[in-house]
Amino acid sequence: MNYTAPVADMRFVLRHIAGLDQVALLPGAEGAEPDLVDQILDEAARFAGGVLAPLNRSGDQEGSRLENGVVRTPKGFRDAYQTFVEAGWNSLPFDPEHGGQGLPWLVGTAVGEMWASANMAFSLCPLLTQGAIELLSHHASPEQKAAYLPDMIAGTWTGTMNLTEPHAGSDLGLIRSRAVPQADGTYRIAGQKIFITWGDHDLAQNIIHMVLARTPDAPAGSRGISLFIVPRYLLDADGRPGPANDVRTVSLEHKLGIHASPTCVLSFGDADGGAVGFRVGEENRGLEYMFTMMNNARLSVGLEGVAIAERAYQQARDYALARVQSREIGASDPTPVAIARHPDVRRMLLSMRARTEASRALAYTVAAALDHGLRHPDPAERARQQAFVDLMIPVVKAWSTDLGVEVASTGVQVHGGVGFVEETGAAQHLRDARIAPIYEGTNGIQANDLLFRKLGRDGGAAAGTLINRMRADLDSSTQDDIAAPVRAGIDTLETATAWMVAHHRSEPRLAAAGAVPYLQILGTVAGGWLMAKAAGAAATALAAGEDPAFHQAKIATARFYATHEMPTAAARLATLTTGGAAVTDFAVDWL
Amino acid sequence: MNYTAPVADMRFVLRHIAGLDQVALLPGAEGAEPDLVDQILDEAARFAGGVLAPLNRSGDQEGSRLENGVVRTPKGFRDAYQTFVEAGWNSLPFDPEHGGQGLPWLVGTAVGEMWASANMAFSLCPLLTQGAIELLSHHASPEQKAAYLPDMIAGTWTGTMNLTEPHAGSDLGLIRSRAVPQADGTYRIAGQKIFITWGDHDLAQNIIHMVLARTPDAPAGSRGISLFIVPRYLLDADGRPGPANDVRTVSLEHKLGIHASPTCVLSFGDADGGAVGFRVGEENRGLEYMFTMMNNARLSVGLEGVAIAERAYQQARDYALARVQSREIGASDPTPVAIARHPDVRRMLLSMRARTEASRALAYTVAAALDHGLRHPDPAERARQQAFVDLMIPVVKAWSTDLGVEVASTGVQVHGGVGFVEETGAAQHLRDARIAPIYEGTNGIQANDLLFRKLGRDGGAAAGTLINRMRADLDSSTQDDIAAPVRAGIDTLETATAWMVAHHRSEPRLAAAGAVPYLQILGTVAGGWLMAKAAGAAATALAAGEDPAFHQAKIATARFYATHEMPTAAARLATLTTGGAAVTDFAVDWL
Repeated sequence: MNYTAPVADMRFVLRHIAGLDQVALLPGAEGAEPDLVDQILDEAARFAGGVLAPLNRSGDQEGSRLENGVVRTPKGFRDAYQTFVEAGWNSLPFDPEHGGQGLPWLVGTAVGEMWASANMAFSLCPLLTQGAIELLSHHASPEQKAAYLPDMIAGTWTGTMNLTEPHAGSDLGLIRSRAVPQADGTYRIAGQKIFITWGDHDLAQNIIHMVLARTPDAPAGSRGISLFIVPRYLLDADGRPGPANDVRTVSLEHKLGIHASPTCVLSFGDADGGAVGFRVGEENRGLEYMFTMMNNARLSVGLEGVAIAERAYQQARDYALARVQSREIGASDPTPVAIARHPDVRRMLLSMRARTEASRALAYTVAAALDHGLRHPDPAERARQQAFVDLMIPVVKAWSTDLGVEVASTGVQVHGGVGFVEETGAAQHLRDARIAPIYEGTNGIQANDLLFRKLGRDGGAAAGTLINRMRADLDSSTQDDIAAPVRAGIDTLETATAWMVAHHRSEPRLAAAGAVPYLQILGTVAGGWLMAKAAGAAATALAAGEDPAFHQAKIATARFYATHEMPTAAARLATLTTGGAAVTDFAVDWL
Repeated sequence: MNYTAPVADMRFVLRHIAGLDQVALLPGAEGAEPDLVDQILDEAARFAGGVLAPLNRSGDQEGSRLENGVVRTPKGFRDAYQTFVEAGWNSLPFDPEHGGQGLPWLVGTAVGEMWASANMAFSLCPLLTQGAIELLSHHASPEQKAAYLPDMIAGTWTGTMNLTEPHAGSDLGLIRSRAVPQADGTYRIAGQKIFITWGDHDLAQNIIHMVLARTPDAPAGSRGISLFIVPRYLLDADGRPGPANDVRTVSLEHKLGIHASPTCVLSFGDADGGAVGFRVGEENRGLEYMFTMMNNARLSVGLEGVAIAERAYQQARDYALARVQSREIGASDPTPVAIARHPDVRRMLLSMRARTEASRALAYTVAAALDHGLRHPDPAERARQQAFVDLMIPVVKAWSTDLGVEVASTGVQVHGGVGFVEETGAAQHLRDARIAPIYEGTNGIQANDLLFRKLGRDGGAAAGTLINRMRADLDSSTQDDIAAPVRAGIDTLETATAWMVAHHRSEPRLAAAGAVPYLQILGTVAGGWLMAKAAGAAATALAAGEDPAFHQAKIATARFYATHEMPTAAARLATLTTGGAAVTDFAVDWL
């Protein structure tokens, strides 16, 4: 149940796939020089493996608890969080103006993968703070920024997202929480919010809730929702946490996984006519503001899929190398061997490994594009990079988190009987992984976003650009046995994209029935493109005599991916082009 | 969280797919006349829905516990088991000579699906008893049968299988438990067994352990293992449970799921030189005897996949019909609708439904063949049916249980956020389902059995016969849009079979790397064959004016299966024919 951050693969992906060198040249990204990044990765690996990972199983067993209205986190979490903050990990990617370190998202992504691998439940606390910081950075007034950002960036205060209500989940237009303006410019907030991750805890001095609510005369639906800052403790004259605000933790959910992460039902304004809230930006633009942080949040959740997959792979591999059972197939020697030597076990391990590496390559590539989109001096290049980000964010979120669940499930299977026993730890990865396809927009919502917003908006232009880029990358020196299946996949993606572009307006329900298969095609093919690219880079490094075992393994993993993952693209294309009517014509009454 | 047995679909499958009428004509199977079976199904449905299903969630929460060396089952389980026994459910498929009702396995399969859907943890107790009864029925002496079978068939005593040891799981040749012969013809058994399902409990008067152990001079490996009866309580002069045997429950496993089912570590012979055991059959033939009950046991575990899938489908469907969220895609009316109306949610529900119905059709078809193989008066026909059973048992076990996990996971997804909350119950189905691909031979072991024993033994003859039968069934009146993808799948299966037959001897490791994909192809195509057959029968029934909604839904579900599941066969063929070397050439050191 140890975790050793895969620093070698992270460095390889940063350097050869995601282009860390180019990112480090971007204005303000000087901290991302490869030598510095190497040091950061090594330190983060030590913290993840040494401090966070050992709390993963105990945190799962103990869970966070609600005691007399206050959430108590599992043993060790307070100290770990304090060390995390003191080491400056919370401030990594944020604006230096408010105390951040200004490192690019690409570096934050690699480091964030480590936190989520080591202890997904813990990692959600800084992740939610990150979302709140981004919202405030983009939309808060200078006074609000000055009041909240320094402590949130330092991590001495944390942040939350209060969106969901019992009747308003995927459809936030149904939100009912009320915000009544007061004479002093503040609002009084009342309503109940559910599924509030780290909505209360004992790790920090204050919790800054970002709350969506309706003002009295707001229009109905999604255009009548405003965003408010509702601090757990109102700030006193010195800007320090003072009197408690009217926010009550009603209960914690008993969840399948991430037990250490308190998922709260919060009630605002139970006692005295409303919790005090401060409007962010303009009225009725709350949902629009939410979208500004969504790309980063969805990238981070996609990364959780990568992270859990990596952790599950490490555990399954270690078990399969140690567990001795049955003779080798085809061998005359009857001596039992490590099960990793049995072809089907190795197939399972390789499917875990190949999916992990491919989804990592994609997540880091998108993170690098995010940095270019934010910092590149040329506006045209920024737009080009942003178009790629917008297209691929739903793919990173949904494809990677589906893989995370499947990889964790395969990890249980590799263990055989002991995989089903909780002490082993393999089952926890499956339980933890299962939330990622659901939150931050279900994977079905991601697929609709990809189809109707991303493809629909530009008529498939960004997808076409990506397809050309994939083909260009493959035209170089890629090994034939890898390139051929990937090329076939790209052709499949092109056909699927054309079909979607042709149908999404005229037959939106038919297209929507194929949205998830389409997203999976795009994810699988993008993974193949990057694994092929990785194989090419590995061959060059091999020829130069660099670390033979690592680079041979990279090429062999790419070969596995090409032969085992790429064929699924064509199957999904058939589903999409021939199977839509089987969905849309099925009467609801027949279910 | 209710469960309503899908009696209409069960009847349809029994009648139109599995051929209940023909089974009822078999000698000794007179109890299986359709009218009688209808009554049995209705009564079983009442018991499953009314008594067992309500204990599923409470049993999961409470779990079985070890208190002062004794296992206590969750509240309500004792009463439920007593009612189960009194109603005669335990004796359904067993030999009337010892008090059984002699019903065919086909009927037992339909009823067994209900128990596993309603309460999988509970259902394992009679399931293990069934395995022990079969072992004794085939291999015990007349005196042993007379002593043990009547109470075990009645269910007043239960049975267990003691195979696994810490170092001997998939490889039972490594078993170390010892059996020392005594002057009186008995043996003294000593050793530790793990993963003993319902190894101790408070439901019955006695527990009859079937224990694998080695006699002092036994040859090494799997040919030196004998089988012993080790009763929890030794029988007194009247044949009633008397003094306790030297069997101690050391601990219970803390498992991902099936919490109510006590999974025991049992220690034999701790106190006084060995537990008293009675040899079954001849020395050193224990593993061989085990194989006689394996087909039924593996069919039953495969059925657990079907059963959990059915339960998960019912729960997801009910939620999706009730939960209102977002407007209908493509509609001008902005009113939010039930999420079952959203194409991607309906796609998920249909994938759950289609996989459940297809795997049910296959399990029942194999159960019917089991009956023909046992009872048909013509030895040639018995052999033909048995060859089909032997070929398909690993497929029913592995394909259905993999689908069970995937369907339960999809069920969580349909629920969105509440799916991750334990109170909802959707997560329990995923936790419970996860054991079925592991126990009773992991799914990797099943695939190797299919490849090396079943295909290898007859050079693909049984598979060829099946392929011809599939094509013949499709030649009749099947709807074209269903038949075409199924026909393509049959072609794929034929190619894959030929590849396997050509390679399993010359390149056993390469073939083994494709064993699971091959098994999945066979399962998928067999499911398509039977769904196509079902669609044909439904069209005939529709034309005759029978229950239009049911039969239209059946045809539409077959259409979904044909367009969404069948395309995966070709993808897996590519994996198998092009991807083996990527597995076998990957050095273990690179993992």
